[in-house]
Amino acid sequence: MKYPLSPDVKPEFCTTGSFMRLPSSRENAKLAVVGMPFDTAASFRVGARFAPQAVRQASMTLFPYHPIHKVFPFDECNAIDIGDVSVIPHNIHRSYEIIEKAMSDLMKNGIIPIGIGGDHSVTLANLRAAAKIHGPVALLHFDSHTDTWDTYYEEKYWHGSPFIRAYEEGLLQTDKVFQIGIRGTLNHPGDLDSSTELGYNVITTPELKKRGIEDVVKEVKKTIGDTPCFLTFDIDFVDPSCAPGTGTLEVGGLNSFETLEMIRSLQGFNFIGFDLVEVLPPYDPTQITSLLAATIIHDFASLVALQLKEEQKKENSAEKSL
Amino acid sequence: MKYPLSPDVKPEFCTTGSFMRLPSSRENAKLAVVGMPFDTAASFRVGARFAPQAVRQASMTLFPYHPIHKVFPFDECNAIDIGDVSVIPHNIHRSYEIIEKAMSDLMKNGIIPIGIGGDHSVTLANLRAAAKIHGPVALLHFDSHTDTWDTYYEEKYWHGSPFIRAYEEGLLQTDKVFQIGIRGTLNHPGDLDSSTELGYNVITTPELKKRGIEDVVKEVKKTIGDTPCFLTFDIDFVDPSCAPGTGTLEVGGLNSFETLEMIRSLQGFNFIGFDLVEVLPPYDPTQITSLLAATIIHDFASLVALQLKEEQKKENSAEKSL
Amino acid sequence: MKYPLSPDVKPEFCTTGSFMRLPSSRENAKLAVVGMPFDTAASFRVGARFAPQAVRQASMTLFPYHPIHKVFPFDECNAIDIGDVSVIPHNIHRSYEIIEKAMSDLMKNGIIPIGIGGDHSVTLANLRAAAKIHGPVALLHFDSHTDTWDTYYEEKYWHGSPFIRAYEEGLLQTDKVFQIGIRGTLNHPGDLDSSTELGYNVITTPELKKRGIEDVVKEVKKTIGDTPCFLTFDIDFVDPSCAPGTGTLEVGGLNSFETLEMIRSLQGFNFIGFDLVEVLPPYDPTQITSLLAATIIHDFASLVALQLKEEQKKENSAEKSL
Amino acid sequence: MKYPLSPDVKPEFCTTGSFMRLPSSRENAKLAVVGMPFDTAASFRVGARFAPQAVRQASMTLFPYHPIHKVFPFDECNAIDIGDVSVIPHNIHRSYEIIEKAMSDLMKNGIIPIGIGGDHSVTLANLRAAAKIHGPVALLHFDSHTDTWDTYYEEKYWHGSPFIRAYEEGLLQTDKVFQIGIRGTLNHPGDLDSSTELGYNVITTPELKKRGIEDVVKEVKKTIGDTPCFLTFDIDFVDPSCAPGTGTLEVGGLNSFETLEMIRSLQGFNFIGFDLVEVLPPYDPTQITSLLAATIIHDFASLVALQLKEEQKKENSAEKSL
Amino acid sequence: MKYPLSPDVKPEFCTTGSFMRLPSSRENAKLAVVGMPFDTAASFRVGARFAPQAVRQASMTLFPYHPIHKVFPFDECNAIDIGDVSVIPHNIHRSYEIIEKAMSDLMKNGIIPIGIGGDHSVTLANLRAAAKIHGPVALLHFDSHTDTWDTYYEEKYWHGSPFIRAYEEGLLQTDKVFQIGIRGTLNHPGDLDSSTELGYNVITTPELKKRGIEDVVKEVKKTIGDTPCFLTFDIDFVDPSCAPGTGTLEVGGLNSFETLEMIRSLQGFNFIGFDLVEVLPPYDPTQITSLLAATIIHDFASLVALQLKEEQKKENSAEKSL
Amino acid sequence: MKYPLSPDVKPEFCTTGSFMRLPSSRENAKLAVVGMPFDTAASFRVGARFAPQAVRQASMTLFPYHPIHKVFPFDECNAIDIGDVSVIPHNIHRSYEIIEKAMSDLMKNGIIPIGIGGDHSVTLANLRAAAKIHGPVALLHFDSHTDTWDTYYEEKYWHGSPFIRAYEEGLLQTDKVFQIGIRGTLNHPGDLDSSTELGYNVITTPELKKRGIEDVVKEVKKTIGDTPCFLTFDIDFVDPSCAPGTGTLEVGGLNSFETLEMIRSLQGFNFIGFDLVEVLPPYDPTQITSLLAATIIHDFASLVALQLKEEQKKENSAEKSL
Repeated sequence: MKYPLSPDVKPEFCTTGSFMRLPSSRENAKLAVVGMPFDTAASFRVGARFAPQAVRQASMTLFPYHPIHKVFPFDECNAIDIGDVSVIPHNIHRSYEIIEKAMSDLMKNGIIPIGIGGDHSVTLANLRAAAKIHGPVALLHFDSHTDTWDTYYEEKYWHGSPFIRAYEEGLLQTDKVFQIGIRGTLNHPGDLDSSTELGYNVITTPELKKRGIEDVVKEVKKTIGDTPCFLTFDIDFVDPSCAPGTGTLEVGGLNSFETLEMIRSLQGFNFIGFDLVEVLPPYDPTQITSLLAATIIHDFASLVALQLKEEQKKENSAEKSL
Repeated sequence: MKYPLSPDVKPEFCTTGSFMRLPSSRENAKLAVVGMPFDTAASFRVGARFAPQAVRQASMTLFPYHPIHKVFPFDECNAIDIGDVSVIPHNIHRSYEIIEKAMSDLMKNGIIPIGIGGDHSVTLANLRAAAKIHGPVALLHFDSHTDTWDTYYEEKYWHGSPFIRAYEEGLLQTDKVFQIGIRGTLNHPGDLDSSTELGYNVITTPELKKRGIEDVVKEVKKTIGDTPCFLTFDIDFVDPSCAPGTGTLEVGGLNSFETLEMIRSLQGFNFIGFDLVEVLPPYDPTQITSLLAATIIHDFASLVALQLKEEQKKENSAEKSL
Repeated sequence: MKYPLSPDVKPEFCTTGSFMRLPSSRENAKLAVVGMPFDTAASFRVGARFAPQAVRQASMTLFPYHPIHKVFPFDECNAIDIGDVSVIPHNIHRSYEIIEKAMSDLMKNGIIPIGIGGDHSVTLANLRAAAKIHGPVALLHFDSHTDTWDTYYEEKYWHGSPFIRAYEEGLLQTDKVFQIGIRGTLNHPGDLDSSTELGYNVITTPELKKRGIEDVVKEVKKTIGDTPCFLTFDIDFVDPSCAPGTGTLEVGGLNSFETLEMIRSLQGFNFIGFDLVEVLPPYDPTQITSLLAATIIHDFASLVALQLKEEQKKENSAEKSL
Repeated sequence: MKYPLSPDVKPEFCTTGSFMRLPSSRENAKLAVVGMPFDTAASFRVGARFAPQAVRQASMTLFPYHPIHKVFPFDECNAIDIGDVSVIPHNIHRSYEIIEKAMSDLMKNGIIPIGIGGDHSVTLANLRAAAKIHGPVALLHFDSHTDTWDTYYEEKYWHGSPFIRAYEEGLLQTDKVFQIGIRGTLNHPGDLDSSTELGYNVITTPELKKRGIEDVVKEVKKTIGDTPCFLTFDIDFVDPSCAPGTGTLEVGGLNSFETLEMIRSLQGFNFIGFDLVEVLPPYDPTQITSLLAATIIHDFASLVALQLKEEQKKENSAEKSL
Repeated sequence: MKYPLSPDVKPEFCTTGSFMRLPSSRENAKLAVVGMPFDTAASFRVGARFAPQAVRQASMTLFPYHPIHKVFPFDECNAIDIGDVSVIPHNIHRSYEIIEKAMSDLMKNGIIPIGIGGDHSVTLANLRAAAKIHGPVALLHFDSHTDTWDTYYEEKYWHGSPFIRAYEEGLLQTDKVFQIGIRGTLNHPGDLDSSTELGYNVITTPELKKRGIEDVVKEVKKTIGDTPCFLTFDIDFVDPSCAPGTGTLEVGGLNSFETLEMIRSLQGFNFIGFDLVEVLPPYDPTQITSLLAATIIHDFASLVALQLKEEQKKENSAEKSL
Repeated sequence: MKYPLSPDVKPEFCTTGSFMRLPSSRENAKLAVVGMPFDTAASFRVGARFAPQAVRQASMTLFPYHPIHKVFPFDECNAIDIGDVSVIPHNIHRSYEIIEKAMSDLMKNGIIPIGIGGDHSVTLANLRAAAKIHGPVALLHFDSHTDTWDTYYEEKYWHGSPFIRAYEEGLLQTDKVFQIGIRGTLNHPGDLDSSTELGYNVITTPELKKRGIEDVVKEVKKTIGDTPCFLTFDIDFVDPSCAPGTGTLEVGGLNSFETLEMIRSLQGFNFIGFDLVEVLPPYDPTQITSLLAATIIHDFASLVALQLKEEQKKENSAEKSL
């Protein structure tokens, strides 16, 4: 059988519980969806532990082919959905270890993971895995918050700090970190500086709107080049009208059309992993947040498919030139 | 691994998409959960096609052991969840055939099915399967409606007619049919007679409340005895306060406590199949309907486990007496 | 065409906007449904102005025949639905006048009205109409509150005062007023006395549960006899589990089954009008409150049908005895 | 009385059950609203059968005058609302026949219909009516999907196929068909080609955004000219943030402002009928989808009013020139 | 000003953010409401951190006087609402310490606390405070679960274990512990034994229904006598129809009427503290769970007021007898 | 303690019931948040009486610093939240008097108020207060409706008339009134003229989009100059996708990003008061409307902080120049 199951093959309301009804394993897999139902590190609204199942359900209404990139991403990557990582809501550190292991196991085997959070702190675990396999990586970070706050009531590990912890742990090539979509009120004037002082590049939503997507992406691409790059997408990057189901909403974001345009322009990177975090199904009565998340994952997968094709092409021409 | 996955083994918010995370197949299976996401035969509110996945999700919060019947039903029956039958929303008859085949395949292999509807018309397919394997069967039918209306705008196949069609097709031992919980306004004075004229026993909710559960169940048990019996449960049997997520609500039903008491007293039957129908997730914002449905299925499975034990005991004593 | 339109004649999801798709006028009408979308006199949650349309929509799922009373109430009474009274949300007194006129016009023509509120203050207008036509009337008042508070911030006309205003205006036979279902916290120890001091009979929910419905109804019937009687039903009489969509919820009420049992035992009265108030659709996401309200109205109409039959019988025997 | 009832004449929360409280018939009617509560041909989420009543309710908050087109559309067209077509959910073909008859009866009498679906398959019935009266017509089709999929599990009649069936039945002037707003994942690379191969013009959302509304409308107008034109509007054309209550959501659509701008620029066509489909009230908790639909219908009616004026003007000048 | 603010003094929709608009401090306070917005120890649905504010909001619709106990509980106890304890979601132990301190500070000052959880693990902190001040205490525990599970993925501190931890820490007089309302599926046959082996008394819901509230309360009272007693109430004790907004729902519980009857019969105890836990506002769209919780707190306060009166009476008669 | 309480100081889910947990009074206050829970003058959906508490709750997720204006607005203004004005839902005029008094008391003391409505009619009371203290004022009015309808069923005081009443009462400098964002259907062609005839400047949403925010704001600023100016913001100015929770929705408005851009450009005015009206929490299930409202209030406060700084600067330079 060809995966993902197309609605041609089994009606879309017949679920199997996996993303687009992917199998849990298959030969030559290059891409894996992974649920990371951990939300204990959140500070306000909670419930992201139900995101993996909600996003998978929303994925049922997607079709296999991406008409803009002209790929069957899940088929071409032999994608799998390995289910949910068995996190422990009452222990942050053990959960991170479990997540990190799942991620590094995939990466080690040449499989690019797309994690579905979970609160944003799971990205710390993901970056640990990435750095273990690839060394310090570049980071493309879409979010309304920089998540470089140091501590929250003296606690160092929470969903507002993954990118300062990642810095401290040396997981990132700091000049190749882009935090895009930042906006909203702050605790201190220096809150944004805390990112730039780490060497990160911060692009606020107003700046993004003013310069335009194309210009920003060009800069990002030029800076990151072919450095192994992790992409983390906090759904609160998008405006609450398009993504109400999240934990710390910020009004005034990009809409869905703009968001997809931007993601679709991210060709030519060397992505080694993705995650999409902070979807909160209890606050998503019409399921539009989960559907947006599922669509973005389809786009991530398409970027991977293009990347694989490109690599294949290079290998082929390399072979020929021998 | 021991199935269903207990929350001891994997946190309950980590789904696999199957009922209580049962496997899709295993050796010596005696019980199978089957999704029947067909709702085209409904006449008012629609959406039961999403019931199988919603009930399975709600099942995540259940535990394996039934403390009243003292059984691990799903483990003792080697239960499986074979997923959703691939129905076709635009063709009633083809859908019935597909459902019937899935059900009779299970029954043929000595597996007792628990179907999750779908609208109530799926029970016609289920009874066809039952009669094919077991001959005409007894029927325990919990519902607020008799579903013995002949036609709806001249259409014979819809969710108000399965039990007149089943009669016409000779699928039932008519004197061993009990319709319990009937209530609500009617189209004609003769609507209830239409059931009794078929030879069915009708017990209204007011009668049930007046006589008491014990007395009614005693009569039912005496009449049906060990005739192969199918149990069909329309969630609108229960009061809307406990089950708002259904298609044709009738106020004034039993509550959850009474419902469970009744189901738990149904020991000593020879059940050959079950279904639970008319859960409509779009009208169940707090998910209490799906949870009630999942709990009832746990109870159905426990009745099967007891039945298997009883059979085993008989076989053992038969062996001994040889 | 026979009214109400049965789902046999037109599918129940095809609305006409009237209760059970009754016509707005017909010959020899004896019963009329009237919308009273006035909610300005509420003190807490608001939104009862949308109740008439929501209850009418919920009525679509009802059938014409009442199997317990064995009547086709709306057909036998040639019932009509005259639509919504054109109230003015910004003027309490003008609204009362408009409501009163609509009600007394109906009563004058021998038509028994069933008003759908609106907040409970509309009953004052209804009682004015009743007293104008019938003189001071008996009152059967189902509610969790006595609504005999004098003023609210010095305002005399609000939904907590209709039954002290009605007393002052001499609209009631005070010893024939029964307030049933009263419960919940109070402002002052004397709050219930304020009713008994007016001569009203107060039966709390705990008393009702303890004595039983039969005993209470017997007393009520004996006291009221064949005095022209108005029945007013505040949906918060019922427990919030069965009627969440209301303005001033009180937990600990009767459930739907008990409520219907009680209403169904109210035969032998001389009802001259009804209203059902305080349904708030914005707080009724599953529509169970509106459906309960619609079902109760069906029951009210059935009581009227029985009453008409009884009158007819008396007339016939009177004629014969001439 | 002047119709529609303005909130000046009767408060907007007093419903009559018809669109903007239009009468069900009147002299010289040129425009009719028609409910088409048929949703059996849907493939994923269901519930469009409740759209006609929800859209009518949302219409209560609209006012009679259109300030941009400077018309009282419903008054100037003597518009009526003929209620819901009595479809049969269990029989697709009989339902189409009933819808077609209602539509062609209106068209035959010179009345331009605005149908409120229902799933998109009702448009096949509408086009049959249109072609019967007007011969093959031009089609302006706003949607995120082309709905030219051939079959769904071998079934030819469902909401993904109306525009291939219409082609096969010769109902359309294929070069004068525009499918605008197409986007989202596909089943096969050839999915869009399937439309262009029929001769249809496909304009995707990205193309629409890039070229601009004005440019696209200009092309459409030039191509279609004064050919009798049917306009079908699937609410999923609009972004889910503005229209969450639909069946097969696609993120990344136009917003409400852009949508209205586009519709308001559609002057100078020879419209002979409209429909607006795929509104699903069970998924529209804040009712913004229904309100958007009602507003669009007000705009459709305004286009008709302008068209009538234009015709009148031509007739007048023709008369003068005699 | 007399507290709580009655709706006579300030309209009930004018909030101050405290329970029934109590002040944050006053002289001679004997009772304090305390928010404990900690939910990190939950295992399934989360969101109890929003319970304190939701229950306070729901309390706005309560009135000061309790007509059954004939007390003004909050006034007679000079009750205060000290706001929310400043817990830290990312550190279970530090949160417990903070909660314990707040509770023991109150108790030390002769103030009886009523805590609003939070998940059920906060009760461990509450019992630590109670034992510190009063020595090992009796426990009245209403719940559908015993919460004596040892560990969850090797973690000892979570909302399924407070009553085994309390045992280990010697906080309880184990023979004076009653766990009432237990029901639902279990992980192991020994799950209930784990409670009885600790010496606790377990009364399941079926037993409670069978024996009747009066009989059970009599036994409890006899056993506990005037031992200092803590009362902990998990809202999932009540049936989901009455309390859908909770984390681990169990169908088949008592309804609101029965629950209040039981609580109201709990006179004559020596209560030294209360908590009410596991209300989850994100799953309570109609707010009936929060209102039930607020009403129960009003009842708890009334029990305290009666207790104070009784103490006063004893003191008075002791004085006299001197 | 520094106010507002930052989430650094107390977790954001620990509420105190005031906006951003401001104190109810402090020295040298220059800014005050005031709740105006009055919604009796609404004509369609109701429930704005719950807006003040909902917006305050939503404010918990905001942080103290405004990164674009570079101010700590609430701290720099010593802002307070004086709670809700004690309005009387059954008496429009007494409510206006109470609101007016609260507002003029603040203004008299040099405190700039930010009122949270309530329906839009509260602005009449606010303008009366403003004119009493400052004489006729300029008005910046963001709304989809002009609210200059004369009467509603002969009632002069309702939420559609505040700006014609304010004109009649001489509260405004009519040539310095700007009504921005007007759109939607109208009752009569002259509806917009009714505003311009009063001398007001009307800028519709299409005009605003066409000219651009910058151009419009420039004109407004030039016209109003440093005239004391009141800013009133009806949340239905914004598109329903961003603000579904309101009473009389108009599709086709600006989105949140554009709205904030516009508000942030309003520097250099002499604001003497603000209100934000028509938020309806019962229609805001995901709370995005309340959050948008809270964010806008944060922006209003920032404009005040900038204004105070500017004044301080002038005073300083004036002092120096002495």
